[in-house]
Amino acid sequence: MSLPLPQVATAAQVRAAARANAILSTSGLAPGYIQANLIVLPSRFAQDFRTLCARNPVPCPLLAESAYVGSYSALKSWISGITDEQLAGDLDIRTDAPRYNVYEGGTLVQSHVEDITSTWTPDHVAFLVGCSYSFEAALTAAALPPRHTVLDRVVPMYRSSLPLLPAGVFGGNKATFVVSMRPYPRSQIRTVRDVTRPYITTHGEPIAWGWDAVKALGIEDVNVPDWGEAPATTDGAPLVPGDEENIPVFWGCGVTPQEAVMRAQLPGIVMGHAPGHMIVLDVKDSDVLPAIASNAK
Amino acid sequence: MSLPLPQVATAAQVRAAARANAILSTSGLAPGYIQANLIVLPSRFAQDFRTLCARNPVPCPLLAESAYVGSYSALKSWISGITDEQLAGDLDIRTDAPRYNVYEGGTLVQSHVEDITSTWTPDHVAFLVGCSYSFEAALTAAALPPRHTVLDRVVPMYRSSLPLLPAGVFGGNKATFVVSMRPYPRSQIRTVRDVTRPYITTHGEPIAWGWDAVKALGIEDVNVPDWGEAPATTDGAPLVPGDEENIPVFWGCGVTPQEAVMRAQLPGIVMGHAPGHMIVLDVKDSDVLPAIASNAK
Repeated sequence: MSLPLPQVATAAQVRAAARANAILSTSGLAPGYIQANLIVLPSRFAQDFRTLCARNPVPCPLLAESAYVGSYSALKSWISGITDEQLAGDLDIRTDAPRYNVYEGGTLVQSHVEDITSTWTPDHVAFLVGCSYSFEAALTAAALPPRHTVLDRVVPMYRSSLPLLPAGVFGGNKATFVVSMRPYPRSQIRTVRDVTRPYITTHGEPIAWGWDAVKALGIEDVNVPDWGEAPATTDGAPLVPGDEENIPVFWGCGVTPQEAVMRAQLPGIVMGHAPGHMIVLDVKDSDVLPAIASNAK
Repeated sequence: MSLPLPQVATAAQVRAAARANAILSTSGLAPGYIQANLIVLPSRFAQDFRTLCARNPVPCPLLAESAYVGSYSALKSWISGITDEQLAGDLDIRTDAPRYNVYEGGTLVQSHVEDITSTWTPDHVAFLVGCSYSFEAALTAAALPPRHTVLDRVVPMYRSSLPLLPAGVFGGNKATFVVSMRPYPRSQIRTVRDVTRPYITTHGEPIAWGWDAVKALGIEDVNVPDWGEAPATTDGAPLVPGDEENIPVFWGCGVTPQEAVMRAQLPGIVMGHAPGHMIVLDVKDSDVLPAIASNAK
């Protein structure tokens, strides 16, 4: 007998299900709602992290943060045109992602725990960072579904050699962009760029494309990603360098700020969602895009 | 008999003097007021330019733009906490920089002209981009005066190999960061970073530093800049690789967006200020910094 499937059509339902530990990955749940990467830092590092995001908005698009030091419920919005109150009703950052990781002094000490209530302190500040689900939905809607979704794989991600612009304690330690990759035929790249360009708060258009870009980004073998699963042709075969029907197209990736935080080896307790187990917001992609398109402040 | 020196203590006085063609370089004029780089584009490229700035805020900090297509007087503010009205009273973008350059199809066709009234069309959009004078004043106030100001030279600037993140028509053509450089002893770099970090709208803290950074940025010879004048020790001698008392410290530079626009070889007429002949705003560095420090939206 299987458990009854929880209601997960809205963001509030996903958060409630996560709080009840009734779900795992949030991939595909509550379609159209914005999902966010979570990073929780001791307050003394908060301003440098904000500056890191302000200087590197493509890989580190800051959506929201704790309204005040220690707040796991009230958020301050960084999304143009979205108020604090619109972000997430009845929120508890400590429980509303399905799974969490906990780091101490830069070392993973707890993996895939159900909540972070016992490690959260009044000195912690939570940050929510945009993820690529938003523009992937747009690509699918434009009849350009990302290859990994067609093959039901996890998107391949790579540590690149492209430096992150430093900000205080972050980035001086040679932190670099993490990039995600989705192959497309040469003929579709222009449309892929156009479709993803407006998604400024969720990585926007590609940062590089083409077989030359693989080398330029310092990626040794595009078939061997650092995270996620291997890319493939539509038949599931490995990519072949030079193949114009499967050109690597790279985007900034939300794993970047987590990598930068880990590499900074901050003293104290740092927390985050377990990869794929995101915080889902009440804000929809459709709420955000008009604000982006007009580039309002 | 020399001409009487015009009053240039305030931004409004500098703009009036520029309009009367009574001054040339704005360097050192109206201390404390924000000076801006000017880029004027045909309207069809405006949204891509906004996106370029949004994706590359460190080298391309967008301060303001025409309030509507064709406006050379009313501006829309992009500076956090600064209203449209505060930016510049009684402004005429076409006359209020001391000198201008005009490009057609990516080629310079008029150099150091007194105004752009005859080439401005109702289809043009003006963009104002932050410049480094703001953080240089802060460094001087912190007893860390930039070397080129001490030696009365123009800051050295270099084309780097660091790619600009592409945005529509901009950047896909291998546009890269232009960087400015100010040498400092190793012992002062931490303070230099701290002093310049809050100046988010005017390039902020350095993007790289150290003798390794010269090579990492693809700069062949730090003593041979692409723009400006050669760097030097306090005695005026060339820099010597490895010298810990004169470590190259690199910042994002406001020449970057101009380079990106030139490389895009846009059809039609593009205009800009002549280097060093800036538009001076009524906004002071001190008006902007509190907003930046709190990182308000």
